[in-house]
This record gives sequence, C-alpha cells and structure tokens, in this order.
Amino acid sequence: MAIIVKKFGGSSVADAQRVQHVADTIIEDYQKGNDVIVVVSAQGDTTDDLIEKAKEINPDGGSKRELDMLLAAGEQISIALLAMAIEKKGFPVISLLGWQAGFETDSHHGIARIKRVNTERLRNEIAKKNIVIVAGFQGINKYDDVTTLGRGGSDTSAVAIAAAMKADVCQIYTDVDGVYTADPRKVETARKMDEITYDEMLELATLGAQVLNNRSVEMAKKYNVELEVLSSLENKPGTIVKEIVKMEKTLIRGVAKDTNVASISVVGLADKPGTAFKIFNKLAQHKINVDIILQSVGRSGTKDITFTVPKDMGKIAVDALTAMKDSLKYESVSVDESVAKVSIVGAGMESHPGVAAKMFEALYDASINIQMISTSEIKISVLLSADDADRAVRAVHDAFID
Amino acid sequence: MAIIVKKFGGSSVADAQRVQHVADTIIEDYQKGNDVIVVVSAQGDTTDDLIEKAKEINPDGGSKRELDMLLAAGEQISIALLAMAIEKKGFPVISLLGWQAGFETDSHHGIARIKRVNTERLRNEIAKKNIVIVAGFQGINKYDDVTTLGRGGSDTSAVAIAAAMKADVCQIYTDVDGVYTADPRKVETARKMDEITYDEMLELATLGAQVLNNRSVEMAKKYNVELEVLSSLENKPGTIVKEIVKMEKTLIRGVAKDTNVASISVVGLADKPGTAFKIFNKLAQHKINVDIILQSVGRSGTKDITFTVPKDMGKIAVDALTAMKDSLKYESVSVDESVAKVSIVGAGMESHPGVAAKMFEALYDASINIQMISTSEIKISVLLSADDADRAVRAVHDAFID
Repeated sequence: MAIIVKKFGGSSVADAQRVQHVADTIIEDYQKGNDVIVVVSAQGDTTDDLIEKAKEINPDGGSKRELDMLLAAGEQISIALLAMAIEKKGFPVISLLGWQAGFETDSHHGIARIKRVNTERLRNEIAKKNIVIVAGFQGINKYDDVTTLGRGGSDTSAVAIAAAMKADVCQIYTDVDGVYTADPRKVETARKMDEITYDEMLELATLGAQVLNNRSVEMAKKYNVELEVLSSLENKPGTIVKEIVKMEKTLIRGVAKDTNVASISVVGLADKPGTAFKIFNKLAQHKINVDIILQSVGRSGTKDITFTVPKDMGKIAVDALTAMKDSLKYESVSVDESVAKVSIVGAGMESHPGVAAKMFEALYDASINIQMISTSEIKISVLLSADDADRAVRAVHDAFID
Repeated sequence: MAIIVKKFGGSSVADAQRVQHVADTIIEDYQKGNDVIVVVSAQGDTTDDLIEKAKEINPDGGSKRELDMLLAAGEQISIALLAMAIEKKGFPVISLLGWQAGFETDSHHGIARIKRVNTERLRNEIAKKNIVIVAGFQGINKYDDVTTLGRGGSDTSAVAIAAAMKADVCQIYTDVDGVYTADPRKVETARKMDEITYDEMLELATLGAQVLNNRSVEMAKKYNVELEVLSSLENKPGTIVKEIVKMEKTLIRGVAKDTNVASISVVGLADKPGTAFKIFNKLAQHKINVDIILQSVGRSGTKDITFTVPKDMGKIAVDALTAMKDSLKYESVSVDESVAKVSIVGAGMESHPGVAAKMFEALYDASINIQMISTSEIKISVLLSADDADRAVRAVHDAFID
C-alpha cells in the first residue's frame, strides 16, 4: 500500500464529463488499496472569468489580498464537484480547502510561498480511509488571510503535500503524456523519456518545455519527491522525474528551443575595469535576468559586450543602458529580437567530452550560424537566428537521439 | 459614532454596476464616522448556477457537506468584488469569509445554526478603521468544515453580527422599501409602516409577506437588535423593527395573504377520547406543521376534524391519515387546495375588543364566506376560498387602515 498524490489541472476538470473521468482515475488507485490525496486546480476558464469580473469592478484588478480571496473560490468549486462525483460512485471522499489541508504560507499575496503543511487533518482523513481532494494554488498566512501561490501553484501544492506526507509518488496529470526529447509537434523523431533527473527537468523547463513548473521541480528535488508526468486522457505510464536515473545510451536527455529571448549589444565600450560590473549591476536593479554573456575585443582599444534577456525585457534593458551612456561611455547599443536559443540537456554530458563539438558539427552540417554559446555542467545552449530555430532543433536531435 | 451592520442580498450585487452602487451606499455611512460591517449574499444567480453544476455531476445533488463547500464559494466571490469596488473608491476595506469573521455553527450542513460569533477579528478590523465585508450564509463547525445556514441565511448572519458587536442598527437592504400594511401590488391603499414590533413582523412573515426571514427576526428579538428594512435602490428611510413602537391610530399593523395552504377534512370520526391526539401525533411524526384546527360535531354521534397544512404537505397528510384508517375509524378524508388564509396582525388588537367582529363584518359586506377562524394575541386569521383572497385583503385593509 502506497501513499499517492495526484494533481489535475484546470483543463482536466473543465466540465462534468471530465470530472467523472478524473474521478474514475482516482478510484482506480484507491481500489488497489492506496491512500490517495488529490490536488485540483480551478475548472477550465474559471480563474480567467474571475479575473475578468475583478477588472469590471476595478480595471487595475484590485488589491492582491482581495484578488486572492476572489480567485481561491475557483478551486473551492472544483474540489466540491470532484468530491461529489466520487461520492456518487460510492467511495468515501472529503474535499479540503488550502487552509483546511494545512497550507501555511507567507503573506506575499498572489505569489505566496509555502512555509509548511500542517498534515494533521490530512492524516486524520487518510486514517478514516477517505480519498482526500485538496484545493491547489491556495493557503493562508499567519493572519488567517487567504493567499494564492501564483503561476504553477497547484503543481507546487501537490509536491508540498507529497513531501509532507512522504508520499511514494506525486503524479502530475497534464495534456501531454510525458517529457519528450524535443517538441513532438516539431520533431518527428522526438520520443518520450521513461526517466529524467530533477536537474535535467529544471533545465528543460527553463528552456521553454513548460511541462512542469520550475518551483515544483525545485521543491521535489529538495525533498526528494518522485514525480511522474503523465496524461490525464490516456491510461499509460508517463515520465518519472527523480534524483538518479538509469543510464541510457543517449548522452543527452532532450533538445529545447526558447524564442522568448532578445540579444542586446553594447558596442565600443571604453576598455577599463568595472564596465561589465556597472552594466549588469544596473540591469539587476531593474530585475532583468541576463542569460548568455559574450565579451569581445572591438575596434581601436574598445570592447563590445553582448548578452541575452527575456524578450519583454529588451526595451527596458536598452533604456537603462541609454540612460547611463554618459557615465559608461560607449558608441552604440542595439537590440535584436529575431533570435532563439537552442539547447541540449543531459546529466551524462559532463563526463563525455566532445558533446559540444558534436552539436556544433550538426549545426554546421545544416548551414546554421551560431551567434553565441553558453555551457553548464548539464546543458549547452547556442543563440541563433529565430528563422533557423526549428531546423536547428531537428538537426541536433537527429545527431544525438536515435 | 455608531456601529452599523448592513446586509445586501444577491440581487443588490448582481452585476458590476450594482456592486458600485452598494459600495457608494456603504461609503456614505462610513464617511459620517460610523463603523460599518457589511454582510453580502452570493451574486444574483450564482447559487442556482452552482447547484446546477452539482446536479450535472450527481442528479441527487451530492452530500450536504460537499454542497456547502460548493455554495460557500458564491459569497466568497461577491465579498471580494465588493471590497475591490470600495478599494477603488479609495477607502480602507477588508473582506472576510464566514470562518474568518468568527461564525461558529453546529454541524447540520445546509441548515446549520450559529452557535456563536467570535468577534476578535471583526473588532481588530474595525479598530483599524476598515470597512468590513463579511460573507453571509456561511460558517464553520467544530471540525473546521464549511457550513451554510440555509434559507435566509445572510439575514441571520447580519443579525448575529449585529448582536455580537452590539451594533446600533442592522439594516437589511431589499428590493422593497419597507414593510407595508398589505401587498402594495394588490392593495392600492397599502402604506409603508415607519415602525413595527418583532412579534408583528414574525406574524407577517409567517403569513407570506416574505420581507425578512423569520429566523433572523427571532434572533433580533432575542438579542434586542434594532432592524431596518429598506430599499437598496432608493436612498430613503425604511421600516424599523424593534421591541416597542410608538402607538399609531390604527389598531392593526398589516393584512397578509397566504395561498400556500391546503385544508384537510377527516369526516365521521368515532367520538371517543384520544382521536385528535392520534391524528396530530401522526402528522408531527411526518414533520407536518398544522395551523388552524376546527373540530365539529358530525352526524349520528361522530365528529369531524378539519385543519390546514402547507400546500405541499397536503398529500403526505392524506396518505398518513389513510394509512391509519383502520385504527382511527372514520368515514372519509379529503383535501381542498383552493383555499387561502387572510390575516390581520397588530400588537394593539389584544387590548381592543371588537377587532375580530370588525374584520368579519368587512368580509360579510364583501359577500365573502369564512371557512375557518383562528386567533392569537396579535393576529386573527380566516380561511376562505382562494378566489376570494385578494378581494378579502382589500376589504379588510380598507376597514382598518386609512
């Protein structure tokens, strides 16, 4: 007998029929003798509808405290309906709001962090052999005010419960059936992985393969919670995310593309100490995340610095740099938004030299120009023209994965 | 400076525009320096929509515990939206769910009774000069499960807060502008009363003038909470409900009609002791409320008993009586659903003889036949043909009220 935590997103419980299907999935595990705790998001478009209502009242959207109060009603509706569906099928079940399930958070409304999960009630309900349905995405702070966890909050709720209850597995049901070596809509030969490490999953998520929210993977890694990403529509195994996975013959785990990137070039900088510090310190003050950085020697004793930022930060970065032109002393600053980042991820590559060379060769064979390169222990990223991105993913995928 | 509790029903906050209007009404009192606590119901049809969702999942409607969980989301949405509207207008405000506002109830889901209101949080928010918006209709039981108070629950929530906070007045906003001497849609000469006693209000409510829920009036009487019934659309004084009201020249306070009534006749009962007891004991076992009872001598040493019950209880009562025909020994039982009850209510009548006679005279002048009569200290009711009911109300109203 195992403790299983299952998480279903909003599209999985969007209407009565899907709620019934989810109920069947839950009951199947319960009937095998497992303790089953289920985390659910708000139904389909409920959250968007509630935000729309708030904007009708106040176009600025109201305070975050009241917005949390409003949005938390969404999960309240979905947990009650799912519990009713399970009741109807004759199984013992109870729904719990975030605070009833023991979710204690800090007071950052809209992006609250879980401080702890007080599992007393959860354990009592499990002891009574109840299937427990928990509202994801929500908790309360020390003032007893309702908080929400922000983007991907229900995934985080599920992992937090799995950690606190020492669950055997935390199953995240999605609209895909697992984690692929590349986007299967773009790369025909992409295949589903049976297993992947937390670090690999984190790199893939950062690179735009948004199957799991990073925060939930980080928490799973920290508390060693075994995750499984699987389909809410098909009844088959998905991809397991855990600390150590069995070696496969492929060195790399996946190829990912990120088009939410802009490249910024500062040309003709005076070549004196502290220039780079000044630039990146200013960008940090503007909360701009800088990814790849390239410094090169420019003409006549100057230097150039090029770096990438998320696309929507491009203009802010350029404005910040323009404002400090006098103190910084450079010739020009420019932004290029027609770029993309293609990366390979794999914990195996660190002990295998030649991985980078193999990637560059594949791109060279496909006549794709590399603008910038960045490497980490388990990842190699290249910046290239956005027009080449899909072709680059296929070329690299074919080179590494059979 | 006073403590004012205001309650707005679902139609008063049905859409963004109405929410804004309610916000203005609240702010007006707050700006005068009052402490303002507001109780709100779910928006417009929200509750019905949620019940519909539950029926899609389970046509039986699910357990009452899960139904309470579901329905409580309705008020959660309306309090957040109202708070946002007040924020937008620049005033300090906080919304509180039933449990946050301290509503502790028993565990009768769907019809929970308030055990106490723990006012700590309410007092803290008032001390911070916040306008407090409380979700009506809901609380939690000792297991921390969400409960709802049933029909008219938000009125009861408002009165309970007013009692616990020793508020100066509890204002119940409705779609009428006060309590009338008769239904103004039926009786042209009906007029709004400035004041009415709790007992009179209770009798009028029982008689179908459903302005206020009885439970809330009973609680107001018990804790001596001054109520005011007033319009959410027009800005003018309504009707005050309190213990002692100033004498008016009219003896009676109002004329009410109740068409939700059936009259049941048991004919040819053996005239021996215990017959009436057996009948009404059986009806009580079926939770049937009996109102007017008439016992008369029948033919050849038998007796007849006629009584009234709510219309939907008519068939149940007849079935119950039919099942005990052998033990009870009677000739026949019949039900008449084409009857109505017309009543006059007024605390003044008990010290004024001749009130009943004046009522009967008015009906006689209008050629209306009286089938049964029932009197209490502050009420006289007559049963008559449903076809005569509206005419009877007008005749009696004209006789007593100028």
